[in-house]
Amino acid sequence: MCFPSSRPSLASDAPIGIFDSGIGGLTVAHAIAQAMPAERMLYFGDTAHMPYGDRSPELVRTYSVRIAEFLANEGCKAIVMACNSASATAKAAVQASVPSNVPVIDVVAPVVRHLSRQGVQRVGVIGTRATIGSGIYGHSLREAQRSGGMMDGDVQEWATPLLAPLIEEGWQSHELMLPVIQGYLEAAGWHAGDQRHIDALVLGCTHYPLAEQAFSQVLGPEVHLVDGPTVVAAAVSAALKEQGILAPSGGPSVQHQFMVSDLTDNFVRSAQRFFGKEVHLVPGGPWFQH
Amino acid sequence: MCFPSSRPSLASDAPIGIFDSGIGGLTVAHAIAQAMPAERMLYFGDTAHMPYGDRSPELVRTYSVRIAEFLANEGCKAIVMACNSASATAKAAVQASVPSNVPVIDVVAPVVRHLSRQGVQRVGVIGTRATIGSGIYGHSLREAQRSGGMMDGDVQEWATPLLAPLIEEGWQSHELMLPVIQGYLEAAGWHAGDQRHIDALVLGCTHYPLAEQAFSQVLGPEVHLVDGPTVVAAAVSAALKEQGILAPSGGPSVQHQFMVSDLTDNFVRSAQRFFGKEVHLVPGGPWFQH
Repeated sequence: MCFPSSRPSLASDAPIGIFDSGIGGLTVAHAIAQAMPAERMLYFGDTAHMPYGDRSPELVRTYSVRIAEFLANEGCKAIVMACNSASATAKAAVQASVPSNVPVIDVVAPVVRHLSRQGVQRVGVIGTRATIGSGIYGHSLREAQRSGGMMDGDVQEWATPLLAPLIEEGWQSHELMLPVIQGYLEAAGWHAGDQRHIDALVLGCTHYPLAEQAFSQVLGPEVHLVDGPTVVAAAVSAALKEQGILAPSGGPSVQHQFMVSDLTDNFVRSAQRFFGKEVHLVPGGPWFQH
Repeated sequence: MCFPSSRPSLASDAPIGIFDSGIGGLTVAHAIAQAMPAERMLYFGDTAHMPYGDRSPELVRTYSVRIAEFLANEGCKAIVMACNSASATAKAAVQASVPSNVPVIDVVAPVVRHLSRQGVQRVGVIGTRATIGSGIYGHSLREAQRSGGMMDGDVQEWATPLLAPLIEEGWQSHELMLPVIQGYLEAAGWHAGDQRHIDALVLGCTHYPLAEQAFSQVLGPEVHLVDGPTVVAAAVSAALKEQGILAPSGGPSVQHQFMVSDLTDNFVRSAQRFFGKEVHLVPGGPWFQH
């Protein structure tokens, strides 16, 4: 697909395009709706190809670019990559595939900025194989710490691929969540109270905020859990303000659109949990044929 | 794609085509290699689209037909659907998409025949959402039991979507496998020693045989665990014999081919566990472009 280098003008009443490999990104959509109730969203969950966290970087890029082009074609004024695995591997490719004045907001950079502004020193990051394998959080955080003059910062990254399936199954408060989280952290050499303790944990997957309580229980109250979706929603707001395309408030009540590339009963049930209220999923998107 | 209603002749030295949504089907490939060491296999794992167990039946059919056509085009003399979710939803579509004299063997029918021949009465089945949602095991087993004159047969089916990710993560012998299995069975009303006891458990997903020990520990030694891959390998052998296309033995040492639609380090590591020895995975198949 070929876009002009920039679109003549961006309409402030156009929707924000949001995508994720599945329904986890609805936690980000929820935070955006809370922060900016006048904004309309077009959400796309690539449920036919999920989970991106187990795919190769090349394939995640191919899928992400195809979706971003679709959302831009639908007239979206901004693109939110509400998926850590896509943010970690496909940000530049997505940015290059849409008109240059359409802001692209990923879920990694805002969190890194937030942590470095707060001067957090010892940071743990958990996420999918694709996210952790990319090293994006460690790389960006270390760079931000160095450029902020912080010399003794420490970043540890742990792949925790079972957590998303557990949360997707609705087990975020199940008694087994605690030993699974503990098992992962201990396998990585982490023990409560020891020298490798951390000041903050980045929940580097859009599913994880639903299990916040379990993480708190394992890590103790002194470890700060970074609320990714809220931080990302603030970054989206700032980007829209900068372009002068915030939706006019006081208009008619906002109707969002939620599309998925494969629709099953299970996704319908889970979507509500992730968005916090009822969601009407419809099949659609770039691969939609039947 | 359009095939003649039947292929002029099937070459006995052609490979057997085997496919699965990922690498779990290698347990079936392993059983075939054990039972028929002279047979050459072309294995395709659709790692770009896995897991089929969470997809809609329509999408599983679309993917399965595309793969079967690819394997038939590659000259395979038989097609083995080494995936329960595909077997449960796409058998007829796959059969219709390849030449009529190319035998198609799925992983459900041979297990059902095996159980009904053995006269097993109370059967439990565990599998993915797609497999259990299709009701294929319950339906076929009840039909086989009725036609065998068995009046008090009982079939219970339980979706256990977390087991495949756990085994894929290498946790089949992890201490957490037991409470997860127990949690699923108890949520379904099953308790050791009670009235709802079962005589046999069908491990209705190609991943599950790797966790045989954990199932035994939870269910006790009196519950028969059906060894799906071995039963399926026997069915493949019978189908080749019937068509007169068993590979001539005593030839040069057999070279299998293992293709995946997306190649990651993690799949390479896991493949060895599932096949029982080293596997050389290469990217390829119907969606292969880069």
